[in-house]
Parts: sequence; C-alpha cells; structure tokens
Amino acid sequence: MHGNRFYTLTASCPDQVGIIARVTGFIAEHKGWILESSFHADDLDGRYFMRIEVKADSLPFQLAEFRRRFQAVADELKMDWRINDSAVKKRVVVLVSKQEHCLYDLLARWQSRELDIEIACVISNHDSFKGFVEWHGIPFHHVPVTPDNKAAAYAEVQRLFEEVHGDTMVLARYMQILSPQLCAAYPGRILNIHHSFLPSFVGAKPYHQAYTRGVKLIGATCHYVTEALDQGPIIEQDVIRIDHSDSVDDMVRYGKDIEKTVLARGLRYHLEDRVLVHGNKTVVFR
Amino acid sequence: MHGNRFYTLTASCPDQVGIIARVTGFIAEHKGWILESSFHADDLDGRYFMRIEVKADSLPFQLAEFRRRFQAVADELKMDWRINDSAVKKRVVVLVSKQEHCLYDLLARWQSRELDIEIACVISNHDSFKGFVEWHGIPFHHVPVTPDNKAAAYAEVQRLFEEVHGDTMVLARYMQILSPQLCAAYPGRILNIHHSFLPSFVGAKPYHQAYTRGVKLIGATCHYVTEALDQGPIIEQDVIRIDHSDSVDDMVRYGKDIEKTVLARGLRYHLEDRVLVHGNKTVVFR
Amino acid sequence: MHGNRFYTLTASCPDQVGIIARVTGFIAEHKGWILESSFHADDLDGRYFMRIEVKADSLPFQLAEFRRRFQAVADELKMDWRINDSAVKKRVVVLVSKQEHCLYDLLARWQSRELDIEIACVISNHDSFKGFVEWHGIPFHHVPVTPDNKAAAYAEVQRLFEEVHGDTMVLARYMQILSPQLCAAYPGRILNIHHSFLPSFVGAKPYHQAYTRGVKLIGATCHYVTEALDQGPIIEQDVIRIDHSDSVDDMVRYGKDIEKTVLARGLRYHLEDRVLVHGNKTVVFR
Amino acid sequence: MHGNRFYTLTASCPDQVGIIARVTGFIAEHKGWILESSFHADDLDGRYFMRIEVKADSLPFQLAEFRRRFQAVADELKMDWRINDSAVKKRVVVLVSKQEHCLYDLLARWQSRELDIEIACVISNHDSFKGFVEWHGIPFHHVPVTPDNKAAAYAEVQRLFEEVHGDTMVLARYMQILSPQLCAAYPGRILNIHHSFLPSFVGAKPYHQAYTRGVKLIGATCHYVTEALDQGPIIEQDVIRIDHSDSVDDMVRYGKDIEKTVLARGLRYHLEDRVLVHGNKTVVFR
Repeated sequence: MHGNRFYTLTASCPDQVGIIARVTGFIAEHKGWILESSFHADDLDGRYFMRIEVKADSLPFQLAEFRRRFQAVADELKMDWRINDSAVKKRVVVLVSKQEHCLYDLLARWQSRELDIEIACVISNHDSFKGFVEWHGIPFHHVPVTPDNKAAAYAEVQRLFEEVHGDTMVLARYMQILSPQLCAAYPGRILNIHHSFLPSFVGAKPYHQAYTRGVKLIGATCHYVTEALDQGPIIEQDVIRIDHSDSVDDMVRYGKDIEKTVLARGLRYHLEDRVLVHGNKTVVFR
Repeated sequence: MHGNRFYTLTASCPDQVGIIARVTGFIAEHKGWILESSFHADDLDGRYFMRIEVKADSLPFQLAEFRRRFQAVADELKMDWRINDSAVKKRVVVLVSKQEHCLYDLLARWQSRELDIEIACVISNHDSFKGFVEWHGIPFHHVPVTPDNKAAAYAEVQRLFEEVHGDTMVLARYMQILSPQLCAAYPGRILNIHHSFLPSFVGAKPYHQAYTRGVKLIGATCHYVTEALDQGPIIEQDVIRIDHSDSVDDMVRYGKDIEKTVLARGLRYHLEDRVLVHGNKTVVFR
Repeated sequence: MHGNRFYTLTASCPDQVGIIARVTGFIAEHKGWILESSFHADDLDGRYFMRIEVKADSLPFQLAEFRRRFQAVADELKMDWRINDSAVKKRVVVLVSKQEHCLYDLLARWQSRELDIEIACVISNHDSFKGFVEWHGIPFHHVPVTPDNKAAAYAEVQRLFEEVHGDTMVLARYMQILSPQLCAAYPGRILNIHHSFLPSFVGAKPYHQAYTRGVKLIGATCHYVTEALDQGPIIEQDVIRIDHSDSVDDMVRYGKDIEKTVLARGLRYHLEDRVLVHGNKTVVFR
Repeated sequence: MHGNRFYTLTASCPDQVGIIARVTGFIAEHKGWILESSFHADDLDGRYFMRIEVKADSLPFQLAEFRRRFQAVADELKMDWRINDSAVKKRVVVLVSKQEHCLYDLLARWQSRELDIEIACVISNHDSFKGFVEWHGIPFHHVPVTPDNKAAAYAEVQRLFEEVHGDTMVLARYMQILSPQLCAAYPGRILNIHHSFLPSFVGAKPYHQAYTRGVKLIGATCHYVTEALDQGPIIEQDVIRIDHSDSVDDMVRYGKDIEKTVLARGLRYHLEDRVLVHGNKTVVFR
C-alpha cells in the first residue's frame, strides 16, 4: 500500500518466452515506474497471468493513450487485459437482508476510507436498515422479494444497478438466490459471502449441516456468483475453531466474524484488481 | 449458548478434596439444573477455580436467597465468589477516540443482540462519532483530554461512569492513557484492546515497532487495565500473517480486523463471567 | 498435564438434576483428589458427558475396587462408563504404506515419551520401513494387500492386532480401505487421518479435488473408522492456507504437515480418554 | 513447484525505472523461459528485490556463461546478486542437542526427498542420536561443549562444517549459544529455531516466561543467527493457542509442533533462495 496515484494493469495470455520483458519493456520505454508487480504461470494449461501497478505521473501520457499504445503489445501476445486508474473510485452496490454484521463492517471500512469506494446504493428485501444506511448519506432501496415477484424484483435490482452505473454488486448476507439472468449479466462482478467452507455445506443452513456432521472448524467463502448455486470461483476463505459445546446458535455467532472478514478481504482483492478469473478458479495476487 | 435464564456462579478458593461435590451438592439439594460447568486447578499455587451456570427456574428461590444460603458453603471453602443473573443486562461504557472499527463492530453486535448488554453511554475525547452514536439512541459525551486537563478529564469520565451505574468500561481504541486513580478505581472492570501481541511492542506505535523488527505475524491483545501500561492480565489475543510487502499502513489495516475481533471476544468472556483474574493472569472458561 | 498417576473416569448418561454432585460426591466420600474435570450437556438429546481425573494415591483402594463400588452410582444414573489407569500404557498398532511423515512423527513422539504408549507393532502393505521400525526395537509385519487377497490380508491384520493385545489401531496414511468386518470389530478404536477437510473431498485424491475446485485452504481430518468410507466421527481437524501458485504436489507437501499434526493431536485425545463418541459425532474434552 | 531443472536468480539493487525490463529483457534475448518470478520494492529506502526461476534447458548456455554475460547487467544496475542451479544439492549441516522432534522431522523430509538436500553431517554436544543418524547413512560427530572448552568446541564445529563444504548450518534445537566468531563467519547461512514468538521472550526458558506472563498464544521463530542473541533477521514465525489449563510442560509439548514446522518452512525458503536479507529484516518470496 502506498499513497501514489497509479494505474493497475491486469492481463492473461498464452504462456511463451519473453512476456514479462515485452510488457515491462513497453512500460520502461515510457519511463513508467513500476510500484508492484506479480506474475503467475499456470503450468497445466499454459496460461500466463500478471498484475502491474504503474505510478501515474511517471508516464508521459494519460490512460486513454496508454490503452491505445499498449494495444499493439496486447495483440501480439493475444492478451485479455484491462487497466484501471486508482483515482477513479469503484461504484459498489450492496445487497442485504436482515443481518447487520457485514453491512456495519463494510460501512465502517468505507467511512474510514479503508475501502476507498463509492457505495452507490444499498438494496434490501427488507426495510430494516433504511434509516441506518440513509444516515450515512447512502441511498437505500427496498425491493421486496416474494415467491411470486422474483422476476420483477431482480429486474428492479438490475435496473437500479444500471441506473447508478454500478461496477460491483456485493451480496452481504443477502438471503435470496439471484435469478440466472442477473447472474449471467455480470460475470466476475457479483461477490457473495457463503457461510461455509465450500465445497462443504452448499445451499441452505450450512451451520446446521456442520453441526450435524460434527466438524471441528467452520468456515466462510467469498466467491463470484454464477448461475450454479455456491459453485462460482472462490476468491477467499477462512475458518474458525469450534467444539462439541458449541450449538448451532454459537456457530452462527462465530461464523459472523469470519463472514465479514472474508467478505471484506475478498472485496478488497476484487476492487484492487488482484483477482483474475481462470475457468472456475481464481488467481489472487495479494 | 442456550435460551434459558440462568445464574452464573464464579468462584475461586484454596484447593482441597471435595470442592466440586460440596458446591454441586448444594445446588442439587435445591434441584438446581446445571447447564454448564467448568473447573480448573492451578497446581503451582494450589488454587481452585470454577464457573457454573444454573437454570434460574429450576431453583425454588431467587438470587438473594441463593446468596444468603450459599454463603455458608463459601465460608467453609474460603471462597471468593459472585453470582450473576443472565436477565440483568450489564451496563457498559465505551471510550473511543477517532478510529471507528471497534465502535462500529460493538454497535453491530449490540444492535443484533449478539451482545445482550446496555451501552450506557459512549465517551470520547473527540466529537467525531456524536451523530453516529446518538442515531443509535445511545448518549454521547465529549470529554476532551489535553496535556493540561488530564486530572479533570478523567474525573469527569469517572463521574459519568458512576452516574450511569456502569459495570464495565471498554477502551475501544481510546488513544489516551487513563490516570492511575481511574485504573485503580475499577480493577478487573476496565478492558483495553492493545494493537500488538503483548508482551511485544508495549506502548506507542506498536505497528511501527513490528515493522522495524521484521516480524511475520502481528497481533492484538485484550487485557484488563492496571496502573502499569499494557501490563495488565491478558484475556484474549490473536495474530494475523503479514509479509515483507506490507507497509506500516497495511499493518494498521490488517490489525484493525484482529483488534475488533479480539476485543469482542474478550468483552464477551468478561460479560459472561468467564474470566477469573488470578494474580496477573486470567482463567478464561470458554 | 501433571506428573501424578491418576485414574480417568469417562461417562455419559441421560441428563438430570444432580449428576455432578452424585459422581463427585462418591469421589469426595473416599477422599479422591480431582485433578481435572470436564462436563458437557448435549441440549438437543438430553445426554450428559463427563471426564474426571482422580489422583490414584488419594483413594484408599485400587481400580478394581473403584469399579466395584462405583457400579451402584453408574446403575442409578444409567451410565455408559469406563475408568483407566494412567500407569497402564495403551498398546497401539500402527498401519502404514509408503509415506514416512506420520510414521517418523509418531516414532519421535514415542521416543521422547511425549506419547507414553507401547507401539506393539507396525504393520505395512510394503516393506519399505522394516529396517527403520526395527531399528527402534519395534516389531514390523509386512502384510501385502492385493486385489485378490484382501479378506486374508485383513484377517491377518486382525490376528496380529489381537495377538499383541492392541488397544488402538492407527492408520498413519495407510492407503488401503479396511474391510467392513475389521471396521466393525473395533468401533471407536481405529483412527484414520484423511487428507482433506471432511466432509469435502471424500475418497481418493483429495488434493486433486481441492486443486480442481480452487479452494484457498486445504485440510486434514482425524476420525474414527467406520464401515462408511470417510464418514466416521471426527476427532480433530485443521487447515493450512494455499494459493493459486500451489500445484497439487505443493498441496501434498503442505498437507503432510497438517496430517501428522492432526493425527498426533487426535491420537493423544483418544489415548488420554478425552474423546467420547456420541452418535456420529465426538465430545472432545481437551 | 515443478519438475524442471532451473536456475534461480536472486538480486537486489537501488530502485529505478526499468529494472524488470532490463533483467527479463536479458533473459528473453537468450530465449530463457521464466518459470516463476517475484519482485518487491522497499519504498522506505528505495531498494529493489527480485527472484527469478529460469528453465535451465531453455538457455543456450550453462550457468558459468550466464554469470559472465549477466555481470554487465548487474554492474549497470549496481546489483548484489547470485544464481543457483536446482540440480546442485545444497549441503546442510544439522546441529542438535537432546530433543528429537526437529531432527526426526528434518530426516523424514530428507528421506522422502521433500527436502532435496545433502545432509553432510549431524553434529551434537551429546551422543544420544549417534545410532539414529548413522542408521540413515549420515555421518555423526559428537562435539561436547563445556563451560571450559567453548572456543575449541566451536572451532571444531567450524572445521567440520568447512571439511564437508557445508552451505547451511541448521540449529535444530541446539541448546548452545554459538561463539561470536562462528556467527560472524557465516552471515545469512546459519538458521536457528527459537521457541518463542520473537521479540517476546528472548533467551532462556521462553515457555516459562510465557507462562508467567499469561499469554494466550505461544510461538516459534526461525531466524538467521547473528552475534546478538535472538536478534537476527526473522525468516518465519507461527503461533499456537494455549489456555489457562496448560502447564509449562504442555507448552513445551505444543511448542514442539510449531518449532519443527516453522524450522522446516524457514529452511525450505532459505534453500530455495527465497530469502533475501535486508538489514535486520528479510524479504521472503514464497
């Protein structure tokens, strides 16, 4: 972490000799100062991944010109790539239901600028947090979800997300299953926190499942949402120790502490362009 | 954890044959239903510790009568003891400065009734959180502390704590050193969260100290406040992994996550009468 | 941990008022000195569990007489119970295949008397460790297992276990699936270490499964062997962090470190009578 | 981890524009295939660190020629650098006293080729492990250390280390303090495992110190040995949870599990040229 404005280049391409030299050569040629850089070769399928932070004011041009000039390098290497400006805040839409732990946690991080983002709005299927969210000066939308109105409800969520030009949607213990359409509309842009150590205990009531199986640790998983429930690429996970004396209620309580921490870490990695999706897995350049 | 109203008996006494039998015999005689019980013998100095939860409605009398009758047992065993009623909420006074992570975290836990307490008031040497705290319906007191007014400021803190009949004072990243008088007034009732893995990095700027020493994990410590700075009995600790790429600012950020978690755990143990102070150490019946 | 000879009473019974008083009253009546005691009530099915260490020389009689006299208490409370003498070393039979990490680890703990047991013999389907085991003065038996001789091979394993009067069988990365007959013959006496965080990745090649799913932590599980593969009661688990740069071979290597630690912890709990099986779960009084 | 023979280049130099481009450009120019690469900029003092693995058979020349040609690049960038061949096994000398856990652990890792090294010899101030070590085909030297013979004893240790052309000396719970001369002779080449979470509990009997202070976690630290006792650059650390019921003997037992794991991890990082010393700190490219 450093105080400079910087551009973050993330890219993947087929592995071959000379990739780093080609990319960093381009940057050096323009006197670009590299603040941080990470590289990874996936041996099994021969794909190469990278993330590079370049100090913005070390370059003689703006981002648009960087994009234009770098395209030739990218074409040559058959790259999937993007570059972001640290000065442009990401616009995040948070979806919640009735549990407060993740919401309070995210707002505290936003308030202290630890998460240097815009929270474009909060959407909930309940109105419990309307006052709390609005007190922070953040728009709140109550979009009830019933067995009968799901299609309309998710269409409304999507409309709101588009309206505020959302970059990332965060399901902060949003206890509803998004429609396949919504999932498909934003691949790699919707993050969920699941309250188990996936792939164990998919679906509903994972703490009950954990209690029944008698596991000695419980976990939480931050992953990208895909159409397959709890099957998306995993970004971050953690666990906490329990024992025979812990009831399901105790697990729920312990679990909250890792849910909010794992969500916050996963979200930070995502927002800092540290996560590259690779099939159903992720490369996370911490 | 369970839903019943219960009494929590905590006690320590010189170790001898028959302590558990004597105490649980008394409870059984009155048909008391034991929900949870923990015992510990300190071999080195021959002292015995216990914590017993008795279901309130299983007993034929109220707490006052329990106290009156149990005194004979306690005298016989030379016990230090206390008994608390789960239906009587503890009154907690929270002291903060300018960092929000512990405050938001405690309020979220209070809001969701995970911490089933009264937050009697919040006191701060800054007024940053006045609006936020009052929005929650909790009184907020701004008590500035300057090099010149320390005695008066801590007298005011003590007056407020007395006025609201506080049980426990929580220093939730309160960046001031309490006066020896205040520390001495409430032994075992003031909890602090220190942002290092004590006894390493006592005093100011522990993350800078950690950075300079090049440690690979950083920690946080919840302890009772005594007159000796950062020397009080430790209730709970935890650590988080860092590496060479983490700056002091990164450590501060990582540290917040363990500070709030360790404080919340330590506070919970304290409020549930799970902590028995023993010299400068603690017995924590989790 | 302490240096005294002691008896360990473990018991479970239907929950009711007065259990602790009845049991500890019996012990106190005979001047029994309790060194350590743990109790647990399972609220869901109303069963009560306990483990008590009594200093051997504080009692006026031997174990046989304790058993005779205590039977009346046990009958009254409808107890399942047992009592063991710390001076009688448990006889452990270790089964291995070709991986050394768990075997070396167990032998180092045995050598240093950290595990104060008799290793009655080591059985393997390979002869790789014959010299190493025998160098330690421990009998080694090579019992090859082929697709065709399984019944005979497991009959031989059982014969050897009986012959040496084994108390506990430890599958220390024994890469064979025991026969249902053998599993059924020793319920709660055969421990296995599985190289995943169960219930994730049951069966063969769990690290490959973990790699494919892209999890961010891998684990190991020590459990009692039952006829259902990897489904027995879990005694202990732990995890270790990995990331995208770790190949399956790296996972295998990291995994060894938790496998041997988790197995050693689980085995210690078992040998110290800290594990009470309850349906398909365990109560572990650490 | 991968199966290829490779060269590992590690280097540090003053930070400036174009370092990665210059170094990877040189490699690419000779068609060198980069398997793994890590870079780190230390912002505070403007120094740059790197570690690059190049597939050996992708280059048109041997290591000697690489060294000759690369020197021009290194001079230009004012680099401290070295390059090693994965096919040349490091020669490790292990020093032990009377505790077996680290020794058994290292030998198991060596036996399974998880640590692909030569153990050139084992040196001990006791002869307890002579038979065990020699059974593995490794030379064992008994070099007693008494208050009176320290200078001679450490001279003998140094002579043996030189005689076997040792690369790295590992103090695997060697309970003696090396002479300043010996420490100074091999900077960054002698690894120690200290049984505390440094900087807490320097010196003798750290578990007693931890017990007295009442900490809730204990740790172990792998560090390079320097003349200042327990003050050298830290390579790796870890901790394990304890509680009030754990005696000093319990801590010693728990501690062994992290000592051996932390030592093995630190040693692996060192042997794979993942550790770059930077003042009294380390950069560890895991």
